Order: sequence, then C-alpha cells, then structure tokens
Amino acid sequence: MKVDGKNIRPIWFDTESQVVRIIDQRLLPHEFVITDLKTADDAIMAIKEMYVRGAPLIGVTGAYGVYLAALHSETEDKLIAECRRIKAARPTAVNLAWGVDKVLSEVLKKETFAEKIETARDRASEIAEFEAENCRKIGEHGLPLIQEISRRKNGKTVNILTHCNAGWLACIEYGTATAPMYAAYNKGIDIHVWVDETRPLNQGARLTAWELGKHGIEHTVITDNAGGHLMQHGMVDMVIVGTDRTTAAGDVANKIGTYLKALAAKDNNIPFYVALPSTTFDWTLKDGLRDIPIEERNPDEVRYVQGFDKGSVRNVLVPPKESPAANYAFDVTPARLVTGFITERGVCRANEQDIRRLFPSGS
Amino acid sequence: MKVDGKNIRPIWFDTESQVVRIIDQRLLPHEFVITDLKTADDAIMAIKEMYVRGAPLIGVTGAYGVYLAALHSETEDKLIAECRRIKAARPTAVNLAWGVDKVLSEVLKKETFAEKIETARDRASEIAEFEAENCRKIGEHGLPLIQEISRRKNGKTVNILTHCNAGWLACIEYGTATAPMYAAYNKGIDIHVWVDETRPLNQGARLTAWELGKHGIEHTVITDNAGGHLMQHGMVDMVIVGTDRTTAAGDVANKIGTYLKALAAKDNNIPFYVALPSTTFDWTLKDGLRDIPIEERNPDEVRYVQGFDKGSVRNVLVPPKESPAANYAFDVTPARLVTGFITERGVCRANEQDIRRLFPSGS
Repeated sequence: MKVDGKNIRPIWFDTESQVVRIIDQRLLPHEFVITDLKTADDAIMAIKEMYVRGAPLIGVTGAYGVYLAALHSETEDKLIAECRRIKAARPTAVNLAWGVDKVLSEVLKKETFAEKIETARDRASEIAEFEAENCRKIGEHGLPLIQEISRRKNGKTVNILTHCNAGWLACIEYGTATAPMYAAYNKGIDIHVWVDETRPLNQGARLTAWELGKHGIEHTVITDNAGGHLMQHGMVDMVIVGTDRTTAAGDVANKIGTYLKALAAKDNNIPFYVALPSTTFDWTLKDGLRDIPIEERNPDEVRYVQGFDKGSVRNVLVPPKESPAANYAFDVTPARLVTGFITERGVCRANEQDIRRLFPSGS
Repeated sequence: MKVDGKNIRPIWFDTESQVVRIIDQRLLPHEFVITDLKTADDAIMAIKEMYVRGAPLIGVTGAYGVYLAALHSETEDKLIAECRRIKAARPTAVNLAWGVDKVLSEVLKKETFAEKIETARDRASEIAEFEAENCRKIGEHGLPLIQEISRRKNGKTVNILTHCNAGWLACIEYGTATAPMYAAYNKGIDIHVWVDETRPLNQGARLTAWELGKHGIEHTVITDNAGGHLMQHGMVDMVIVGTDRTTAAGDVANKIGTYLKALAAKDNNIPFYVALPSTTFDWTLKDGLRDIPIEERNPDEVRYVQGFDKGSVRNVLVPPKESPAANYAFDVTPARLVTGFITERGVCRANEQDIRRLFPSGS
C-alpha cells in the first residue's frame, strides 16, 4: 500500500542488500522507521517486541526467520532448533508455526546449505505473495456486504467499527478486517470507520488510524469503552475485526476486548464479521474458550502508554507506581456471537458445517 | 479517608481561611495538590475541568458554589443567574442541579446577604455530611452481598470488578461502589479488586487504584478491554459500579464502557450491582436510552493520555495528529442488565416497583 506516495509492505526481502526489512511498527504513527533483520534472533526479537504484529505478518516474519536461521546454521540440527525458538516467540499465533513449518519442510528436502538458503528465501517470499493475494480476495468477498448496507441506506455513509489493527500493516497488503473497507472505498462507496484505540498497545489509534488516514478513508478514533454506546444509538452499521486464531467450530481468539464488542453487536442486532485468511483456522481446536491458551504479556504495557510529546516518543506511567496490573493479550469470542467469516474463499457462517463447506479438507 | 495517615476529604470548608478547598484530582496519583475555590467561576472551572468529579462530589461542589456566588453577588437576580451558570457546568450530573437548587431555595428565604452567605455555607456543609453518611450506609447494605460470596467460596478471595472511580474521591467518604469494598476489607474479608483503567481519563487507573492502595486493599489495574475475558474464566465474582444518573425504571447512566461490562456480566451469570445514593435517581425519567442526554467532551481527552515521565506529569498524543476522535462521556446500561441497586436504604432490584418499595415518595 502507499505511504507518502511510495509503495511499501510491512516486510520485504531487499535484493540489493540481501537482508529482510521491516517497518518498526512500535513507533508509528509518530516515527516511520525501517529496520533490518539479519539473524534468527532479529526475527525473534521483532516478533516478541512487536516490531511486527498481526497474524499474517507474524507468519511471514517466521518464514523469513527460517531463511535467516539457515544463513547462520552449520547443521540441520541447529537449523531445526532455531526454528523451534522462532515458533516459541509468540505461542498464540498459529500462523507463526504454520509459516515456519511450511518453509522448514521444504528446506529439509534440500541437500546443500546454499540450496536450503535459496529455498527458504523463495518459499518465504511465496508465502508473502500468498498472504497478499488472500487479503485481496477477502476484500473482494467482503465488498458485497458493505454494498448491501450502502444500498439499504440509500447511499448514506456506512459506519463500520473495527478493533485493533487487522490492516495491511498486520498483513502484507490490504489487511484482513480492512480489506473490505479498502475495496468499498476504492469503489466509491461512502464509508466511515470507528477505530477502537485498542488498549493496551493502542494498535487501533496508532496503526489503523494511520493506515486509513494515509489512504484517505474517513475515520474517527474512539476509546474501547465507546462502541456499545455507538451501537445503542444506531451509529454502527457493522463490525469487522480480524482474528489471531479460529477454531473449527467458529470461536475466535482476537485482541482483548473483541468479545465485549461482539456482545454489544449481538445486543443491538448489528452484524459482527470476522475477516480472516484460512491460515488462522486451527482445525485441531473445537472449544475456543477451553482450548486456546491466552498469552499474558508484560503488565508494564498496561501501566505505561506510549505517545508523542515535545518532539519525541515517550512512555508515561498512568496508575500509581505501586499498583500492580494484569495484561491478558487476547480473548475468545464464542461462535454464537459471530455473524460470519469473510475468507479468501467467500463468506460463511461461524459454525463447523458452513466453514467446512468452504474448506472441506480443513485447509 | 486517610492519605499518608491524615484524614482528608475531597472538598471542605476551611474555617480559618474562609475558603472552600478541594483536592485537584487531575494530577493524581502522581501529584497531590490542594486548590482553593474563591468564586463561583472557580467552582464552575473545577467542575468543568474535572478538578472534582463523581456525582456526589459534583453536587457538594455545586452547593458550595452557591455560597461562593452569594459572597460576590450584589443582588438576588445576580445570585440566581450565577447559580444557573453553575448548574450548566455539567449537564449530565443530576446531583449538580440538586445540590445547587437545594441550597439556593434556602438562601432565597433569607433577607440580608450576610444571612444568605451563612445559610449557603451551612447548607452546603450539611449536604457534604449527608453524602458521607449515605456512603457509609451504602457500605453497610452492600457488605452482606460480599460476605455471602465469601461464605460460598469458603473464605477464598472475593474478586470484585469496578469501572471508573466511584470511590471517596468521587464522594465525600467511603465512596459509592467502593463503600461495600471498604466495609468488607474493614471486616477482614479477603477481597481483591479488578480496577478498569477507564479511558479516556483513566479515573480507575489513576484514582481508584490510588484510593484502594492507600487503604491497603489488594487490587490489579486492567484495561477496559479485559473484563470480559476475566468473567469468562471465573476470575470475577461480582461487579460493583457507580452511576451518574438513574431512571425511575432502573436504567443507569454511568461512565462510558459500563454497558459493555454489564453485557459481559450477564453473559457469564455474574451479579452486576450499581451502588448509589438515591440523589442520583431522576424520578422524571423512564427510558434511559431515549431520555438521558449523553455529554460529548473534548476529543483531545481521547487523543492525549496523561501520565508521569521524567519527574513531571505530561500529556502524550497517541493517534496520528490528523486523525479525528470522538469522546462520549457516558453510556446507558438498561435495567435488564442490572442485578440490583445498593442504596443508603438497602438493596433493591432494578425495576420501578422494587425501587419504589425503598423510595415510596420518589425521594
């Protein structure tokens, strides 16, 4: 997508310098910094410290991580051990293990390390293209849902609420939750997006607002507390969010707070859609609430807020310094609260039967 | 209540200097500043700029505002006009109009301005005592609800979730939502409080956490997004919140985001209590969603977050500077989601009949 008129992706292989490059998303929207990843440790750090975030991008970063590991591994055992470390960088992200394993299995078929390295790089690039194409298709399949609301409202503004950042910064192009929005905007449909700020890390306020603004889409930043009120008063026509991990039965693990918005959408008869590439399905899980482990992150992410003041990005402490905090990163939205999934193969209901209609072989 | 071993209230009349004093709550928990109110304009500014906040405290500040207005008014017409201005400082707060009108009606019965001034001051102090006593009774009536859960859990920790600050800083003593917590703690019941940070102004993280910590109550600060997840996993035994305005039918206007927590409590069969002095009932309203006007505040409260960094309190910008924000201050929780009201006269269900049982004359 475009930033200041220049095409850019959140991760790419730079053929000239032979390194992997990423946008350091921690400093956005106030500073726009490109960082080089040269080793598996760089990739692990980028995933752990959230230089990169979002299911598809984490998967692609993991895939390039295998390439970086191959560059610096003398033995296959070392390479396999490095890949295990990469997968452990973010246990909730099913895409990470998927991306790493997909590249690694191809790499292990090659004899020489020169071949392994080349294969890893090419497979990682293919996964990046695959994710970009998936997102384009999600936009294509989500577009009619927005068109239909626009028709029903006689062309008046369609108000869409989203939580966190499931945009191109989280993916490669288009995004997942944002793909239908970009598609609708590009078709000239009048849309406006309510952007949940998404505490603790404010990916909505910092990243989604930045993305949408750069593309020219009307949007308004709101606190995570506000969505219920907006829905009660007819100011939200639909909700579209992403997902980090989705069960075969349709339960959705997404950024903490998603469940609360799903409850409010249900209470006010507002359609609640989850946009996802099918790589986020975990076909081995049935009961999301019971089976999906929820990552607890550093409480300082709750206690400190990052923002811009007097020329630099700072972290300010909000509660008393003695007060403890807890930081659960995700919650699980039960399938009963989800109107439907917008996938690269089309739209389906959030139940096993309808999901299997689109994905009969479970992949 | 105690701060560093010293008894203090959020507002008081200082007999020595003959001025009204308040804790400037904007800088808590990082700076503890006492401010003088000398004129009606000072009182209006203190209410508007949230030096003081919370329904009962706003009512008492309005009451003392009549005293300050009387000090500087040459005619009754001027005094009445000043009181009208004070009431307009915060249109959602029913206590404000109540406190102002209660004092003003007594003041207008007096002949001389010396008498008017003395009456205003004494009536305002009486209202402060009345609110403190109400809160003490709320604690007394809420205590058995916590004792019952503690019994059922065989003395294991009772986890209570609260939103915003309905503590003594918002009232005069004890608080409303916190009154049963202080009562339980003082009885030696093992409690732990999940404190919603309460964006945009973070009254939970800044004030409730500070209050509870100063009193020695175990607590953990969480994002507003986290409560649903905690409830899904049995980590919340009850919710207690305050209210800014309550309809005769039991609908509750409270800090934005309260409705989302009520939905989650309902979805997980967790009791959701609203603690209130009966002064927050607006007996003229039936349908809260339709009839309660929701104040829209300055969007910069959403865009900037206040915290502490390098020795001073700062405001940092979170979203891109070009992105607009919206700031709805309250939402309405329908009576159907409320388990009960904890009032100064006892506990009742959130329906007109049961409310009238405790308050037959509507006051």
